[in-house]
Amino acid sequence: MRTPIPDYLTEIQDSLRDDDQGAVADYIPALAEADPDLFAIALTTVAGRTYTAGDCDVEFSIQSMSKPFAYAAALTDRGEEFVGGRVGVEPSGEAFNELSLESDSHRPKNPMINAGAITTHQLLVGSGAKPAERVERALDLFSALAGRRLAIDEAVRDSELETADRNLAIAHMLRNYGILEDDPHEVVAGYTAQCSIRVSVRDIAVMAATLASGGIQPVTGEQVLDRATARKTLSVMASAGMYDAAGSWFNDVGIPAKSGVAGGLLGALPGQVGIGSFSPRLDAHGNSVRGIEVFRRLSTDMGLHLMDTESFGSHALRDIRVDADTTYLSLQGIIDFNGAEVVLHRLDEAPPETPTVIVDASRVERFSDVGRRMVIEGMRRLSLDGITVGLADPEERLPDPGLGDGTMPFIVPAQRTES
Amino acid sequence: MRTPIPDYLTEIQDSLRDDDQGAVADYIPALAEADPDLFAIALTTVAGRTYTAGDCDVEFSIQSMSKPFAYAAALTDRGEEFVGGRVGVEPSGEAFNELSLESDSHRPKNPMINAGAITTHQLLVGSGAKPAERVERALDLFSALAGRRLAIDEAVRDSELETADRNLAIAHMLRNYGILEDDPHEVVAGYTAQCSIRVSVRDIAVMAATLASGGIQPVTGEQVLDRATARKTLSVMASAGMYDAAGSWFNDVGIPAKSGVAGGLLGALPGQVGIGSFSPRLDAHGNSVRGIEVFRRLSTDMGLHLMDTESFGSHALRDIRVDADTTYLSLQGIIDFNGAEVVLHRLDEAPPETPTVIVDASRVERFSDVGRRMVIEGMRRLSLDGITVGLADPEERLPDPGLGDGTMPFIVPAQRTES
Amino acid sequence: MRTPIPDYLTEIQDSLRDDDQGAVADYIPALAEADPDLFAIALTTVAGRTYTAGDCDVEFSIQSMSKPFAYAAALTDRGEEFVGGRVGVEPSGEAFNELSLESDSHRPKNPMINAGAITTHQLLVGSGAKPAERVERALDLFSALAGRRLAIDEAVRDSELETADRNLAIAHMLRNYGILEDDPHEVVAGYTAQCSIRVSVRDIAVMAATLASGGIQPVTGEQVLDRATARKTLSVMASAGMYDAAGSWFNDVGIPAKSGVAGGLLGALPGQVGIGSFSPRLDAHGNSVRGIEVFRRLSTDMGLHLMDTESFGSHALRDIRVDADTTYLSLQGIIDFNGAEVVLHRLDEAPPETPTVIVDASRVERFSDVGRRMVIEGMRRLSLDGITVGLADPEERLPDPGLGDGTMPFIVPAQRTES
Amino acid sequence: MRTPIPDYLTEIQDSLRDDDQGAVADYIPALAEADPDLFAIALTTVAGRTYTAGDCDVEFSIQSMSKPFAYAAALTDRGEEFVGGRVGVEPSGEAFNELSLESDSHRPKNPMINAGAITTHQLLVGSGAKPAERVERALDLFSALAGRRLAIDEAVRDSELETADRNLAIAHMLRNYGILEDDPHEVVAGYTAQCSIRVSVRDIAVMAATLASGGIQPVTGEQVLDRATARKTLSVMASAGMYDAAGSWFNDVGIPAKSGVAGGLLGALPGQVGIGSFSPRLDAHGNSVRGIEVFRRLSTDMGLHLMDTESFGSHALRDIRVDADTTYLSLQGIIDFNGAEVVLHRLDEAPPETPTVIVDASRVERFSDVGRRMVIEGMRRLSLDGITVGLADPEERLPDPGLGDGTMPFIVPAQRTES
Repeated sequence: MRTPIPDYLTEIQDSLRDDDQGAVADYIPALAEADPDLFAIALTTVAGRTYTAGDCDVEFSIQSMSKPFAYAAALTDRGEEFVGGRVGVEPSGEAFNELSLESDSHRPKNPMINAGAITTHQLLVGSGAKPAERVERALDLFSALAGRRLAIDEAVRDSELETADRNLAIAHMLRNYGILEDDPHEVVAGYTAQCSIRVSVRDIAVMAATLASGGIQPVTGEQVLDRATARKTLSVMASAGMYDAAGSWFNDVGIPAKSGVAGGLLGALPGQVGIGSFSPRLDAHGNSVRGIEVFRRLSTDMGLHLMDTESFGSHALRDIRVDADTTYLSLQGIIDFNGAEVVLHRLDEAPPETPTVIVDASRVERFSDVGRRMVIEGMRRLSLDGITVGLADPEERLPDPGLGDGTMPFIVPAQRTES
Repeated sequence: MRTPIPDYLTEIQDSLRDDDQGAVADYIPALAEADPDLFAIALTTVAGRTYTAGDCDVEFSIQSMSKPFAYAAALTDRGEEFVGGRVGVEPSGEAFNELSLESDSHRPKNPMINAGAITTHQLLVGSGAKPAERVERALDLFSALAGRRLAIDEAVRDSELETADRNLAIAHMLRNYGILEDDPHEVVAGYTAQCSIRVSVRDIAVMAATLASGGIQPVTGEQVLDRATARKTLSVMASAGMYDAAGSWFNDVGIPAKSGVAGGLLGALPGQVGIGSFSPRLDAHGNSVRGIEVFRRLSTDMGLHLMDTESFGSHALRDIRVDADTTYLSLQGIIDFNGAEVVLHRLDEAPPETPTVIVDASRVERFSDVGRRMVIEGMRRLSLDGITVGLADPEERLPDPGLGDGTMPFIVPAQRTES
Repeated sequence: MRTPIPDYLTEIQDSLRDDDQGAVADYIPALAEADPDLFAIALTTVAGRTYTAGDCDVEFSIQSMSKPFAYAAALTDRGEEFVGGRVGVEPSGEAFNELSLESDSHRPKNPMINAGAITTHQLLVGSGAKPAERVERALDLFSALAGRRLAIDEAVRDSELETADRNLAIAHMLRNYGILEDDPHEVVAGYTAQCSIRVSVRDIAVMAATLASGGIQPVTGEQVLDRATARKTLSVMASAGMYDAAGSWFNDVGIPAKSGVAGGLLGALPGQVGIGSFSPRLDAHGNSVRGIEVFRRLSTDMGLHLMDTESFGSHALRDIRVDADTTYLSLQGIIDFNGAEVVLHRLDEAPPETPTVIVDASRVERFSDVGRRMVIEGMRRLSLDGITVGLADPEERLPDPGLGDGTMPFIVPAQRTES
Repeated sequence: MRTPIPDYLTEIQDSLRDDDQGAVADYIPALAEADPDLFAIALTTVAGRTYTAGDCDVEFSIQSMSKPFAYAAALTDRGEEFVGGRVGVEPSGEAFNELSLESDSHRPKNPMINAGAITTHQLLVGSGAKPAERVERALDLFSALAGRRLAIDEAVRDSELETADRNLAIAHMLRNYGILEDDPHEVVAGYTAQCSIRVSVRDIAVMAATLASGGIQPVTGEQVLDRATARKTLSVMASAGMYDAAGSWFNDVGIPAKSGVAGGLLGALPGQVGIGSFSPRLDAHGNSVRGIEVFRRLSTDMGLHLMDTESFGSHALRDIRVDADTTYLSLQGIIDFNGAEVVLHRLDEAPPETPTVIVDASRVERFSDVGRRMVIEGMRRLSLDGITVGLADPEERLPDPGLGDGTMPFIVPAQRTES
């Protein structure tokens, strides 16, 4: 049996493929050449499993999606107090490229706007660091987060530096206020290199999942960031990651997120998943048009929303028991997206070897919409594999258990499932 | 055995009791008379259990803490689209009593500032509603949320109306823009009545817990608000509830929250808890000085933070098994505040009747700091009750299991605990 | 001989009559009924002579043109220090109906915006004054300035009070800050009455000329305002009178001015003239479309600009001497609009009784464009009256002295004109 | 006889010499070395006569006082439309070094703030100009305005360039918006050179007087700027020259003005005078403390205020007639500062050669305070020179004609003065 999750992602992608609104970023020559039709989605669970759809291995520059990770690096290298003295954490309510300094301290309001990100870049490593060391620091950390060695796209970096007047303006102003110490042109060059690191959606989903799992890279198991740093990074993404639309993004999507001008968009739901999307056409705010829609769909359809309370699925699979020619899958608790994912992953990795499988829902508290659909789809695929599927659901937590092909699982009396 | 949770709350309270910074709100005569030393904390789980400390039955006016609930009522009565056309969801970055209208639409930026809350109040019930009907609607909903009949403090209401120039200014301006339809003085009178509803910390903890559990009042089990309304309400609290300090509140505390000028502060953590505090001394922003510190402590000490990933405790107690003179408590997963609370509640409600209790941590993934401390405290109290306590922890997930009185639980070999 | 000045005004009017851009103010029912085609211009010299064109006796409500005069009254009644503590003098850079309070003191930024004008109205008379006394004070002063008894348009006043939410908002906010002491609704009622005083363009030109002549009403000779008050009033008109277009108004027109939403526009050029125009169609900023154009033309064509240096004409007529059958008019200095006006007025009031008139320009430093045209027109009209006109202009300061009808004045040798 | 005007300036200076508030600009090393006690005043009439007091030949860098003249140069070189498309004319209401760009066009709000002045500098000469040509253009124009060859202070220029981050920030931002075309560092270098041109108070008084007299350099008689350019330059100085204090400056002083961070302050009153002061101690806004006070005194004591109506003095001296041993000085009109200056200058330049002088005030309309004091002082000095002074003043326009030394002019019957 194969898990249906990639198919769900493909469905979302198919439903959005005809949306060709927006335009590729044209103010940077190297970005203007991007193929506007590229489209990819990736989702990584905190258990380290990644599901993808579309052009998931195409690389593109990370751009502003580098900001939260560079912030995490600065917190690690210099400590919260030092960093907090130079960059705030309040939403600016303004566009990403506005100066947005606090009126008294002249601190950039947060590390997600350019002024804050340029400042953050200079905080990397330490006060005596050379420009190249800071870039290397970002590259090393991003590589550890992605779980593979990343590289800088030098053509993109050079192209961006040619039209970097706005960032140079910001950097000179920051030095005027004593927020930056080094040569503004060197800092902008380093920051631009950081933004030019090449990633795929796979990479950004894994990087985001690392934030979602308290700094533990979920594939390698390495504690890349400490727990407090991951939490602070997610917090500032939640309050300032979507610039001047923080409130409506929170309301509609509820996934702390950050976009990049090359078309990437990443999000992280604490304790649950990291998400990445890629589609180069941007809206007027500089966010990927399809990317935003992907997140909206993931939030709405799969219940992935910070304020949604159906998120207790990690122990959804109570146990698996084989009794003669029957495998019993005993579910428990609230079965939401994450809970169903655990079940489906198990069936994918270690397919039942018995002719009959019985799903025992007697200990389930509630299925979310998506949880219900995912579990039923799993049963349908088992059935397609020739397995006889039964359902033990004495309190009818799983309504309409039809498998979509006209058949139903056979209904098992409650007592038969007891161990 | 008694659960130690109230003691934890009392400890927080004791540690903050000497902090007499701030001052009782003095611009409203009736509030200026409040006893500044009153202090209370309450915490309600999504399972409906409430723990309290201090003056938990003292009543005070709900004030701005009424805003999220009135917003939920407006969403219920008029639908998201209608409400969204009149009140935004973006943080204003300004103080609560600033006008903060959007420049084009003249919508108040969000329902947590006064302009938005006055507009929200007028949206209650329906377009032909009489002023008294709107107040009644708020009173009915708040009562259902609290699980008891609430009442208006008429002295507070009348006192506030005497110095309501600022709200009257806002209301006249809103009518000037066509956002309000009714007489501004009537609307402000109704809004002021809504703000004058009397609550205790118990009430606000339960009301907040209703938001945290998807709109289901956790004590009565009534679905008071629908799930989407609860989510939207929490979202706007998260992005705009703390006014101009949204980002640092998110970073430091991470609990969607709302304060009231009478000294109340409520917060809700989705899927976990509702929290209320009460202490009338306010800081310069109009927030309760001790209240903010209570939330900071709950977030830091008990891991109650939206971005914290240790929040999978609801199935922490895998099972309880009695074998001869021994009770086996089998824990699983991540044992954070919520997970430990489940365990301690069970021990409180149904004390073990055997002379020996063995805590089986062999299936535990990780204890959070607070989870560890709470479980150890539970074991210590069982021990004080004369019970012999053992620990089965083959992978040493529970470091330093000393019971605080010099004794240790006896260590059980892994195989003995297997069922 | 008749002076040609009214004809010049009529020419301006004719050239603008086809401009029907803009719309009558429609937010006040009583103003919406105004005949949009009404059009009038008036100009009063500091010597008290008034020239008019169009519907110069039609009355309309003074509206915001009352603001500078009420400010002058407040300065008179309460002194500069008291008034300055409650209303500033800085331009707001914002629309007239924005709140525009200073951030610390909460003073309205200046008396030309509504917030400042409402505050100013309450400062009239004294701190114990009754609402009716303040209205009476404004009416008395405005009548003294106009030189005739004015009256309130009660229909306009009542109509405006019905849609006064914005001003009520402002007034409540001002009381909230302690800037206003009295009941906001009473103050707005009084202010609205002040704005409803009926005037004609004749009235506003004379009122403005009073400011231009240091507070001396130029027709009655009464010192209505003291010199310092007139100067302060003109200063604040210059810096804040045209709201958010202060700079371009200064640059293009250079006449301290104030408009009213009924279509009036008044301006004053210190030491020179008061100007009034009336045309009810307004642009998006609430200023009379044709009125602005009238001022632009008066500034450009007649050299009436604060920064123009050709304004030394009041002694332009050195002397008049009759020798046998010839009258000698000896001019001196710079002959600009004002200088020529003096000459033409003299010819109008006391026509020469000799068959020959010689204009002696030998002491003239320079003619401005308009000065040259006006003097030549005067000579042409003398000629039409049957008088033989000669010109003594040895240094040819008056180029092209053709009288427009094909004839030329006869040229007089320099020595013949010497006395 | 010597004119008393320099003595008046010295009196002002003496009264302010003890005011050592403020501090020399310290952010530019070369300015920090300035002698804080230097103090100079100069006043140039539109007739080209200059009066001075103090360190009037000490040179200092022109700094921001270069802005209006560079604006005049840009208007001359590129035309109003071209310049107006890149720099606005509205007051910014902000400090001089704020970005203050218009929200839509991104034009700097006016040429008096740094952003506008940097833009203005790049507009000099033409679009293909080299950096050095622009500096040369400024130097040539400023020299023509001053009437002598000026030079750049290279030490100041180099010192300022070392701490030019703020201007570099502004320049990069302007290029980002396409307002600047050239390399930001080159433009800032050129602008800084322009600001480093050395001047004395004599120079700036003459330069300002050129603006006051319609672009005619009053000493050389050269038409350095055309009339419209001079008017536009004065207009923008009036509305934006004093940054965020435009309104109170207008109200209190009423002289279009511009200050420089080296301690200079210049002002121009159209048709009257140019004024310069120099004192390096600055207030928090960057304006010379004593300089502001000098202007306040000149405005108040000498009636030099744009809105003052006593400014018709240029023909104050009707004629001078010698009859036997008596010289008759016939005055006319309003005798204010300028009027009295004409009289006193004439007595200085061509002292009466008769034993008796009679001042005929019978045609005087009014003496201003300062006019009266100046005329009486002139009479006193004639008397000290041994001349017998008489006064013909039948309508007693000149009250208290005592000469200050206990004597009185002899009073002449009206008929004796008639010609």
